[in-house]
Amino acid sequence: MAGNTFGKLFRITTFGESHGVGIGVVIDGCPAGLTIDESFIQKQLSRRKPGQSAITTSRSEDEQFEILSGVFERKSTGAPISIFIRNKDTKPEDYLHLKDVYRPNHADFTYEEKYGIRDYRGSGRASARETVARVLGGSVAQLLLSHHQITIHAFVSSVGKITMEQNIESVDLSLIDTNIVRCPDAIIAKQMEDYILSIKEAGDSIGGCITCVIKGVPIGLGEPVFDKLHADLAKAMMSINAVKGFEIGDGFSSTLRRGSEHNDLFISSDKGIKTATNNSGGIQGGISNGETIYFRIAFKPVSTIMQEQQSVDKNGNAVALAGKGRHDPCVVPRAVPIVESMAALVIADHLLRNNNSKIN
Amino acid sequence: MAGNTFGKLFRITTFGESHGVGIGVVIDGCPAGLTIDESFIQKQLSRRKPGQSAITTSRSEDEQFEILSGVFERKSTGAPISIFIRNKDTKPEDYLHLKDVYRPNHADFTYEEKYGIRDYRGSGRASARETVARVLGGSVAQLLLSHHQITIHAFVSSVGKITMEQNIESVDLSLIDTNIVRCPDAIIAKQMEDYILSIKEAGDSIGGCITCVIKGVPIGLGEPVFDKLHADLAKAMMSINAVKGFEIGDGFSSTLRRGSEHNDLFISSDKGIKTATNNSGGIQGGISNGETIYFRIAFKPVSTIMQEQQSVDKNGNAVALAGKGRHDPCVVPRAVPIVESMAALVIADHLLRNNNSKIN
Amino acid sequence: MAGNTFGKLFRITTFGESHGVGIGVVIDGCPAGLTIDESFIQKQLSRRKPGQSAITTSRSEDEQFEILSGVFERKSTGAPISIFIRNKDTKPEDYLHLKDVYRPNHADFTYEEKYGIRDYRGSGRASARETVARVLGGSVAQLLLSHHQITIHAFVSSVGKITMEQNIESVDLSLIDTNIVRCPDAIIAKQMEDYILSIKEAGDSIGGCITCVIKGVPIGLGEPVFDKLHADLAKAMMSINAVKGFEIGDGFSSTLRRGSEHNDLFISSDKGIKTATNNSGGIQGGISNGETIYFRIAFKPVSTIMQEQQSVDKNGNAVALAGKGRHDPCVVPRAVPIVESMAALVIADHLLRNNNSKIN
Amino acid sequence: MAGNTFGKLFRITTFGESHGVGIGVVIDGCPAGLTIDESFIQKQLSRRKPGQSAITTSRSEDEQFEILSGVFERKSTGAPISIFIRNKDTKPEDYLHLKDVYRPNHADFTYEEKYGIRDYRGSGRASARETVARVLGGSVAQLLLSHHQITIHAFVSSVGKITMEQNIESVDLSLIDTNIVRCPDAIIAKQMEDYILSIKEAGDSIGGCITCVIKGVPIGLGEPVFDKLHADLAKAMMSINAVKGFEIGDGFSSTLRRGSEHNDLFISSDKGIKTATNNSGGIQGGISNGETIYFRIAFKPVSTIMQEQQSVDKNGNAVALAGKGRHDPCVVPRAVPIVESMAALVIADHLLRNNNSKIN
Repeated sequence: MAGNTFGKLFRITTFGESHGVGIGVVIDGCPAGLTIDESFIQKQLSRRKPGQSAITTSRSEDEQFEILSGVFERKSTGAPISIFIRNKDTKPEDYLHLKDVYRPNHADFTYEEKYGIRDYRGSGRASARETVARVLGGSVAQLLLSHHQITIHAFVSSVGKITMEQNIESVDLSLIDTNIVRCPDAIIAKQMEDYILSIKEAGDSIGGCITCVIKGVPIGLGEPVFDKLHADLAKAMMSINAVKGFEIGDGFSSTLRRGSEHNDLFISSDKGIKTATNNSGGIQGGISNGETIYFRIAFKPVSTIMQEQQSVDKNGNAVALAGKGRHDPCVVPRAVPIVESMAALVIADHLLRNNNSKIN
Repeated sequence: MAGNTFGKLFRITTFGESHGVGIGVVIDGCPAGLTIDESFIQKQLSRRKPGQSAITTSRSEDEQFEILSGVFERKSTGAPISIFIRNKDTKPEDYLHLKDVYRPNHADFTYEEKYGIRDYRGSGRASARETVARVLGGSVAQLLLSHHQITIHAFVSSVGKITMEQNIESVDLSLIDTNIVRCPDAIIAKQMEDYILSIKEAGDSIGGCITCVIKGVPIGLGEPVFDKLHADLAKAMMSINAVKGFEIGDGFSSTLRRGSEHNDLFISSDKGIKTATNNSGGIQGGISNGETIYFRIAFKPVSTIMQEQQSVDKNGNAVALAGKGRHDPCVVPRAVPIVESMAALVIADHLLRNNNSKIN
Repeated sequence: MAGNTFGKLFRITTFGESHGVGIGVVIDGCPAGLTIDESFIQKQLSRRKPGQSAITTSRSEDEQFEILSGVFERKSTGAPISIFIRNKDTKPEDYLHLKDVYRPNHADFTYEEKYGIRDYRGSGRASARETVARVLGGSVAQLLLSHHQITIHAFVSSVGKITMEQNIESVDLSLIDTNIVRCPDAIIAKQMEDYILSIKEAGDSIGGCITCVIKGVPIGLGEPVFDKLHADLAKAMMSINAVKGFEIGDGFSSTLRRGSEHNDLFISSDKGIKTATNNSGGIQGGISNGETIYFRIAFKPVSTIMQEQQSVDKNGNAVALAGKGRHDPCVVPRAVPIVESMAALVIADHLLRNNNSKIN
Repeated sequence: MAGNTFGKLFRITTFGESHGVGIGVVIDGCPAGLTIDESFIQKQLSRRKPGQSAITTSRSEDEQFEILSGVFERKSTGAPISIFIRNKDTKPEDYLHLKDVYRPNHADFTYEEKYGIRDYRGSGRASARETVARVLGGSVAQLLLSHHQITIHAFVSSVGKITMEQNIESVDLSLIDTNIVRCPDAIIAKQMEDYILSIKEAGDSIGGCITCVIKGVPIGLGEPVFDKLHADLAKAMMSINAVKGFEIGDGFSSTLRRGSEHNDLFISSDKGIKTATNNSGGIQGGISNGETIYFRIAFKPVSTIMQEQQSVDKNGNAVALAGKGRHDPCVVPRAVPIVESMAALVIADHLLRNNNSKIN
């Protein structure tokens, strides 16, 4: 059973390869009557697209999308919404020399073994270009969430060891796009940018973390016992290329603490029952509790580097590889809208799922 | 859409509450002809069961299970396998005082809000007692994996700040059950045990980490692009009560490294193509590459503590709560078989899913 | 991928064999707060149970069920509802002689070939005893539908060539259970009963049809393009043992008619827009239109007969078989609550599915 | 939960509207390494396309498809295969007068009520043009089945009362496409053709039946208890526009027979165990038994007719409607490849599902 569908009620199926005809998505389950704001979709695509700044790959795609179905007079009709983007700046010839070679940490070897055949042009389906379809689907999900006053913001919280340490509630999310790194702390952002440029010059790559903040989620989203809200968020994030770790709320640091330190005490407020602290990250027992949801995601360094590396070909013969093609030295700045999109897909799905919790 | 089913082809549906009639599972999709070794199932239940040592809750359940269907003359028949355990040592009266009160960090508040009704007896469905069903289902999955020479071992790698640091390949997994903490390093294990006892005496609780190691997984498991093997492992682990974080391979630490440091170079060996290092944790492009799969999971401190805590009741009135009932000061020793079970369910599911990757 | 789960949002998973421990169901997705009326469940079981009259098998089961989970203080909690019935009047020794023999038209041969192993005791999982679980799940679905003023009635409309011809709207559904055949026309019912008894005396069996009538379904249930409401009803009915055909509305007879004869013209009424006729059977474009839904189902004659039949054993050797065990000469009287149950499961599922058709 | 996906392991998701941009499909789960023969896909499209003969609608579409993903060097890669066809001969202006009117027996009313919005251009998503996507997906399924020596042929077996009566095994399937009706009996076919032309001249429409024959299916396909092979076939067929009934094997006529007449006795042959007759239609206990699978499907008369009909508009006001647009007087000749396609999707799905029935 293949795995190109995500979500249960708000559900996307994606298709397409890096250097094939294009990348597309089918969104099934979007309620009818939603205004499809194409400018928002385009904005999110622009934040993800290659060639947007000095610290990203130079591949140039204008990401012009076409809505193929499901929208009539600018509104969703309840029919599946399909959106497609044709690839333009493809250079399959850049990859011909990789036809029989396995690049370190890429999916070349595992795809070849699993399927017995491999579209070697720019990693084919395994390319991060696939995430365009996630942004297309996630943007429509975000439009649905906006209708319900739910907002999602992701930002770069670390690059290598350069880390932005700040309480989640005090981060000014409006500053995220004021710099090319997408870190809302201008001073840290500048350090990150300089560091990424130095990495690029060294022909190397570097990892980093993204933090995501979701506000306005109603109490009650998440389905015990397996489809806990943070379990589905974890799966969504871990399915993004290059992600190696996920933590919700105080995450790994909670393991160092005592219950008496970690527990979020309930209090009464004029907005009803709240928690005094939010170490839980807005989810308790797998269900949203009305507080801010936040989580952090680890991205490994990009596998393709310009330095020479040792590897093998299909027959196991040693080969030396130097990076060709066009690649990012650090993936996190462009991954911000992807994280937001995957988060939106999870929240939209659970928003619809929660509608049948009680009899009415 | 409720969430009590896990897996696609090897699939479990679980049911039952902490202080209700009992806990059960239906396993659908187990291939016919598998010998169902009941002693293995019982062994895994014993490792999870309460009252097993000085550092666990004193609730006493002998966990006697009954196979209700799907097994004939000790073999699976292809029909759904249902297994049920009746609860014995229930004390619902311990929970009557919690009927209208929300315990900090418990699911009381979110369940009440989501469903409008709550089985308050020992947290009902939200209790970690629910994980008995995971062990029942996961044990059958492990029997299937054993048939394919795949082994799964989890162990406690940290309790609070006490951490076992060791290269995954050099850990002696046969030592895991030689102590009550289930840490394969005897010296560290003793420190952990003493620490947990001191926490217990203080009426408090403490978090910790579990590491899981899977060997013998064939190349090719995992389904791009959403059902990557580590994405499904992440979801499985994050769905376990009290889990707050997940990382595969070198996880969060990979964000600190350069591509030239992190990449696992391919080499030829007498076992075919291998990687020289295994920072990827046995999965590349979401697909198993034949190397050891390993990941680490963060468990927060148990929410119920014996110290008095502030909270509110249904009407928002402040109440002071002191823990009653019987609880663990640290959940990780008993969570080891749960982690193994969830891992087994994911691997078994993907083993079956991979059977149709290529035409034959 | 095994097939023991039915439904998407209101979903049952069933388990159990004819002469094993018992038969059970897990219902996941029932909204919380529904009053679980056990007397209704028992009533439906009684209508299905063996030994209820002179025209049914003499196997005696009191069908005493136990709710294992998901109900608290008589109400559904949102957790999975599991219900189990232990088999009592099992006679596995009646089937020992069939261990290596394939009975004509039974699933013996296909199960053996598919799974390589077969629980030969009373057909195991392939027995119509499996339908007990459908009635358990379907009865809970009917309770949910009652809450929404939706009613479902099935009745026997033919046995062999004896047919009750009547306009659907004029059938007095309150008469269904006034005779043991469950045909609401007393005169036809008596003919059917006599005929079934004569068939029984001849050691033979006979087929028949059931008609099902659903009233009160709101406009809008059914999901284009594959999950049309009548497509899901067809699947539900065809999955019942011995069913060979399904037709909605005027079904096969519609193929004989012209569009100008068949079309249901829209009219205005004090209840809003209605159709003047109802050849469509209450569904248009796969979506309920507010009219009465009705369909007819064909049941073949029961495979087991008391007359001697020729067959083969596992090794292909010819054998002569005379029926043993206890069997019905005609399945339709007992199938009435099964049809109602499967219909209820489909309508309940689509009732929940329809909740997200439009933005609110 | 929307319903635009069909199948579990071999799975299609379709999108598109009659007078929108076009119609497309995403096929997920097709094993890698399958040669994608585009000429076969085109051939099946041609058999379905409008304007192919005097007895079909005059809309003209050349049905030029584009493979957007999943195929590399003419072979499937394991990635999702997306195929798209742009609509060309659209005449949305033909439908402007229907914007606020409900045509009898069409989905206008139910779509409007369900979604609150309706793409009225040529019925939008409810148009039979949607079936183009089924043929695209089903053709790829047929290529997979061909690889396994499984053949599927459908033919017109009745138009109105004109019926081809013949034993399934003696039908010469090679004659199906020798006439425009697609009935393999030349004499009956001519009667049907003349009859359809007379119906067309009368501005009316007529119903009919299609019979489908599947050969070469291995023993073992079908998943008890809900996903019986004929239950999934029934759902597939009933989901096709205008289908009102389904019967497998001797179907409704089996209800008239005794068990001693209906039962298919097992015999030994040089091909192993077979049945002497095939009233079961190749499926027993929901599982294929190696005999020919055959079933019959009822299509109602096309809803749109050229005669004037009474109806109402959105506000319930009476209106008189005369058919505009371009429509078929009888749908069955063009439905033949659609039936084959849906059958192929079911068999392909179950072929993959059956791979895990036993341990290996």
